[in-house]
Amino acid sequence: MDVQTADLVLENIGQLLTMDPASGGPGDEEHDPVAGLGLILDGALAAQGDRLVWAGRQRDLGSHVACTPGARRVDLGGRVALPGLVDCHTHLVFAGSRANEFARRVGGSSYEEILAAGGGIHATVKATREASPEQLLALGLKRLDRFLGFGVTTLEAKSGYGLDTDTELKILRVASELGEAHPVDVVPTFLGAHVVPREHRHAREGYLDLVCQEMLPRVAEEGLARFCDVFCDQGAFSLPEARRVLEAGLALGLRPKLHGEQLARTGAVELAIELGALSVDHLEHADAAAAVKLAASGTAAVLLPGATYFLGRKDYADGRMLADAGCRVAVSTDFNPGSCLTENLPLMLNMACLQNRLYPREAILGATRFAAEALGLGEEAGSLAPGRLADVLVLDTTDYRNLIYHFGVNHTHLVFKRGKQAWPPPG
Amino acid sequence: MDVQTADLVLENIGQLLTMDPASGGPGDEEHDPVAGLGLILDGALAAQGDRLVWAGRQRDLGSHVACTPGARRVDLGGRVALPGLVDCHTHLVFAGSRANEFARRVGGSSYEEILAAGGGIHATVKATREASPEQLLALGLKRLDRFLGFGVTTLEAKSGYGLDTDTELKILRVASELGEAHPVDVVPTFLGAHVVPREHRHAREGYLDLVCQEMLPRVAEEGLARFCDVFCDQGAFSLPEARRVLEAGLALGLRPKLHGEQLARTGAVELAIELGALSVDHLEHADAAAAVKLAASGTAAVLLPGATYFLGRKDYADGRMLADAGCRVAVSTDFNPGSCLTENLPLMLNMACLQNRLYPREAILGATRFAAEALGLGEEAGSLAPGRLADVLVLDTTDYRNLIYHFGVNHTHLVFKRGKQAWPPPG
Repeated sequence: MDVQTADLVLENIGQLLTMDPASGGPGDEEHDPVAGLGLILDGALAAQGDRLVWAGRQRDLGSHVACTPGARRVDLGGRVALPGLVDCHTHLVFAGSRANEFARRVGGSSYEEILAAGGGIHATVKATREASPEQLLALGLKRLDRFLGFGVTTLEAKSGYGLDTDTELKILRVASELGEAHPVDVVPTFLGAHVVPREHRHAREGYLDLVCQEMLPRVAEEGLARFCDVFCDQGAFSLPEARRVLEAGLALGLRPKLHGEQLARTGAVELAIELGALSVDHLEHADAAAAVKLAASGTAAVLLPGATYFLGRKDYADGRMLADAGCRVAVSTDFNPGSCLTENLPLMLNMACLQNRLYPREAILGATRFAAEALGLGEEAGSLAPGRLADVLVLDTTDYRNLIYHFGVNHTHLVFKRGKQAWPPPG
Repeated sequence: MDVQTADLVLENIGQLLTMDPASGGPGDEEHDPVAGLGLILDGALAAQGDRLVWAGRQRDLGSHVACTPGARRVDLGGRVALPGLVDCHTHLVFAGSRANEFARRVGGSSYEEILAAGGGIHATVKATREASPEQLLALGLKRLDRFLGFGVTTLEAKSGYGLDTDTELKILRVASELGEAHPVDVVPTFLGAHVVPREHRHAREGYLDLVCQEMLPRVAEEGLARFCDVFCDQGAFSLPEARRVLEAGLALGLRPKLHGEQLARTGAVELAIELGALSVDHLEHADAAAAVKLAASGTAAVLLPGATYFLGRKDYADGRMLADAGCRVAVSTDFNPGSCLTENLPLMLNMACLQNRLYPREAILGATRFAAEALGLGEEAGSLAPGRLADVLVLDTTDYRNLIYHFGVNHTHLVFKRGKQAWPPPG
């Protein structure tokens, strides 16, 4: 029997949710209410450097793991451990506040009225263009601290509040620096086609030329993004426009992601599948046909219930339908200043249950294994198995369901990122 | 000019929200978007012992306040300060978890099916009857820590998970002990008429006899509650039943509060007004006529948006209508294991804006001044003025609107309760 050397051992884990794909799919609630969790009662974990070397039952620990001198052993006292959470859709880097707009919307102002008054996304673009990289970095670090405090250890960050070449590149460079400077891994995505900026409002073709012929080549050349995303919807970019941008990105080695089906059923799902997108995100208006196609594809379905909530809309995506069809359903914050200003990913899991009608175990899959897959990181993050990153969230509860049921509060006890304690910050 | 002696001074407050009734009512958003906040820019506060002695502008501090030797002076660096929050409707004391029921509801089980399977409120009653006072106390202290962490310094706690005399008294005694043992002030309410317990299900009259003839006299004799509440609704206690219990309480010196109009428009508002209730709570089905009557009464309207949310219902109370009619609208968590398990009162303020359509400043009034008034504590808590308790919440932001706009996260920087730092716990 192989014995693994470890410099970090987490012991006495009451419920260890490995989320290991080897333990099976999300299954059927009635026949197996813990399907997909890879649940081990009385478990333990061992890591060496930044990787896990062993996951199993406490009683088997001694015969499988040998500690290095000076190894850290942590008794978790029967608490819950699961993979560090993965937030696969955020707009992390921006400046400015839209608190004022929040009050105006309560008062009944339409999004269009707010836009016309210079508010909405254009206000964020203006503030982000004016902000220095240092200012954006400082804002981003505070946000990452909050994400980490809720157990997020990997996070996607989109550009899209620059809408000119210099600012789009500035945002992506800041995203990369944030990943270097902070324990949380930051995965950058180029979203130049977020909206047509005001200065191009009478020349959208010219803006798409800029995105495809200037921004994308620069992004690829500097290696600033892993993915290319487009906001493809009614009133946003059309299917042909989205195809143009995504194909230009593909030609430069950027895999597609897509905002789609939020405001209307446009066919964004089919485009995403055709182009091999890692995910199609929002899906409020996805129908049964879309669900069946997505389930048969390699494209993940990303739910963003906080945006539906924050915009005061009632048309939550039918997560139940997507999950029942067999889609890999991820759940994310959509963190952004206009339609969902929160770093609380567990709260989004509560919404995914109450509003999108996922089961709690499906929601947890959606913020771990399936979210990692939606970032092409299924072999690295989102599950606890030998060879994966030692990214571990320890909850201050003995029942994993409290992460979702007992909502709006922070259950984080400890977070380990790449084998090191990241939260609370050591020292 | 009078000079006040102070042993605690909070200086350099960027936005001081006094919520002082002397500064006026909630007003009209269009004409005065800060009406009711009693907003002082560049403010300062001074306290002696457990009371405030002065609130005003930083530049006037020196000429109005003299510090005692050894006084504590805290520079808040431009942050926001407001009254410690008041949560005027909670079911703080109970045992057991209903996480399982949460998953069953996602799966489509009706509340009635869950009840029939021994779940729902009956599961909580069983667990609470079986729990020792020590166990209930330990659970309550953890919950109060979380409430305090979100800035709550005064909280109402209802009985109603005992439904027999011994357990109802046990819950109320625990509530009193919690208030003694913890910095948060706990205001106990007797809610024996929460639901008819299973053992009386064929004899509801007998249960009401027990409530009125045995429980209420014992509660009054031991001084265990300040208020008497009834769940008066379709499928719960009828108007005549509620009247009987509330009148029995009144005769013993307990002022009425009332759960009403949650599931149907029953006339609970009119009963509450007639009996001089401090508040009528829920109001999902209150109509314009109810709003006009409430506005002309001394009874506050308490919104509990988290319960509507957590039950997956769409019928949020029309807070906009109630506020426009001139009601004093309070907002509370309804903290309880079946329909809203959260201590995050600021998250409820976000829901009150997005779902009940209050303006942010109205929501803040609803968790400070009007919530205090809904507990008969308007002269003590919920506003910052000389003579009031020195209960102060300091936010880690320079814009008070972030308390609501930037949701699901904890903005608390410091909490002072009765003039002492309560959070983070000192030492």
